[in-house]
Amino acid sequence: MDLSVLFLGTAGSVPTVKRSPSSVLIRRGGDRMLFDCGEGTQRQLLRSTGLIEVSDVFITHYHADHYLGLPGLLKTFDLQGREKPISVYGPRGLKSLFEALRRIFGRISYELELIELDAGEPLERDGYSIAAFPTSHSVQSLGYVIYESERPGHFDAEKAEELGVEAGPDFGRLQNGEDVKINGRTVKPDEVMGPHRMGRKVVVTGDTAPCEATGVAAHGANLLVHDASFGEDERDRAVETGHSTALQAAELARDAEVELLALTHLSTRYFGNEIKREAKGVFPSTIVPDDLDAVLLPFPERGGPEVIRANDSRKKK
Amino acid sequence: MDLSVLFLGTAGSVPTVKRSPSSVLIRRGGDRMLFDCGEGTQRQLLRSTGLIEVSDVFITHYHADHYLGLPGLLKTFDLQGREKPISVYGPRGLKSLFEALRRIFGRISYELELIELDAGEPLERDGYSIAAFPTSHSVQSLGYVIYESERPGHFDAEKAEELGVEAGPDFGRLQNGEDVKINGRTVKPDEVMGPHRMGRKVVVTGDTAPCEATGVAAHGANLLVHDASFGEDERDRAVETGHSTALQAAELARDAEVELLALTHLSTRYFGNEIKREAKGVFPSTIVPDDLDAVLLPFPERGGPEVIRANDSRKKK
Repeated sequence: MDLSVLFLGTAGSVPTVKRSPSSVLIRRGGDRMLFDCGEGTQRQLLRSTGLIEVSDVFITHYHADHYLGLPGLLKTFDLQGREKPISVYGPRGLKSLFEALRRIFGRISYELELIELDAGEPLERDGYSIAAFPTSHSVQSLGYVIYESERPGHFDAEKAEELGVEAGPDFGRLQNGEDVKINGRTVKPDEVMGPHRMGRKVVVTGDTAPCEATGVAAHGANLLVHDASFGEDERDRAVETGHSTALQAAELARDAEVELLALTHLSTRYFGNEIKREAKGVFPSTIVPDDLDAVLLPFPERGGPEVIRANDSRKKK
Repeated sequence: MDLSVLFLGTAGSVPTVKRSPSSVLIRRGGDRMLFDCGEGTQRQLLRSTGLIEVSDVFITHYHADHYLGLPGLLKTFDLQGREKPISVYGPRGLKSLFEALRRIFGRISYELELIELDAGEPLERDGYSIAAFPTSHSVQSLGYVIYESERPGHFDAEKAEELGVEAGPDFGRLQNGEDVKINGRTVKPDEVMGPHRMGRKVVVTGDTAPCEATGVAAHGANLLVHDASFGEDERDRAVETGHSTALQAAELARDAEVELLALTHLSTRYFGNEIKREAKGVFPSTIVPDDLDAVLLPFPERGGPEVIRANDSRKKK
């Protein structure tokens, strides 16, 4: 089952030539979920995946740079005759916000479901869950954790045969957790199955100061996408505005034992290198994605996260 | 006095990889005016002129692809501490629309003036005017004509000296339209000044079917920026949706004797070449600008419009 994260927009509150406002696309199997949808997200999709029929949009908070791409995207889906419903999730206030936004996109050809979330309510999907957790910004804000269910352990066919089980339906029964009787002896799944394997976990914070809830949600995550609006030179400003410095995000990632940290929402004053340097001093497994960079997350037993740069030629400079 | 037109967004209702939604920047001397402001206009500015302090925004009609970049642009100006007021003009309904949009951009650091226009009310500026004219779209819509005042004719210094006027203050008096007395004889400005020279004229239609008011407004224009959403293969659809085909726009430009026609608002199904071919068959002085192409409009006695391509290398292919 593939799982990937595409950085559609990595700018702070003001876009730059290089960075579009906030948006992250997470794809798992056939599911396509946006986390935030800043102005221009539809064109960022056009430039990368094409205008795919996103199924869910999760908004972290109601600052315009995190949702202003939504009315245009919803309208474009309508103009394309979309029929598939779409769900938009966010903190309380979503329905009230959409009273204003609906004026912009008008009547649409498909169902739009608006769901106000509180922290801690997990949404169950096929094989994974999405839960909101409280973050610490200047307005009410949520981060999101996407975590897969545990997978059954590795099946040891040789051992099963040693115990007298023949390849066939009994193998399937053991893999499904059922006992099998062989010549009056019961073979239990535990005897032939390895330990359950962890699912993968991705966390997207949106805008936030460093906070304990992020650390808890991100514990052992394969990827943590964290606010790094500022460098240490602007630490006071980060505190005032409810954002994080790169160093703070790195400390949190280290303490939460995440596998890879991706820093985003950079203020216009930073190009990325200084942010990366400060974070890597504390937590070497840090990247500062450019727009349209992606991270592939294979099952852990098949390898670590793989970073795909949108513009490889630039890296050679 | 320089006068130029920069095509910030040339897409139809749905953006493409290559084309951002509608926006045109007109610069005259120190004035910077946007005509429509589709989603992503602030980044198109960043990619070309930088985030200049636009003084006026003229909206042609209230379909989202023509104004959805405005809340983000207004918010960004605020975040940058803008102090200079901004004026937004549009058809009736502007104030009501802004009741919804204000929810998005919130309180801002500078004055925002909202002016609802009717067709025919000219706004007088220093040396030029801007007037709205009615266009024919599926909702109430306006086009805009920017026209300069007539300029005084050429001053013939040799002739003035023949008539006994000495170079000095008397030259200035004649150029300002005052009589001058030389040895009891009156020299009149008419004797030494050529005929008044026409000012320049630019017309921006927004979305419209071909209509007489555009033909009148555009008569003799140096540049007409006209809707060409469709080719002839989609003429019925153009009629149904209140848009123009390239051929219709070309016929109008020919009949109105405009100098240069720029076609825009292309539907996603067109790449530009087919649109250009159909129009040029009727009106050879046609361009189909790409995003960030510009047209410079010198005073007519100094030459015709000059097209500046954003991406010259592409033209070599």
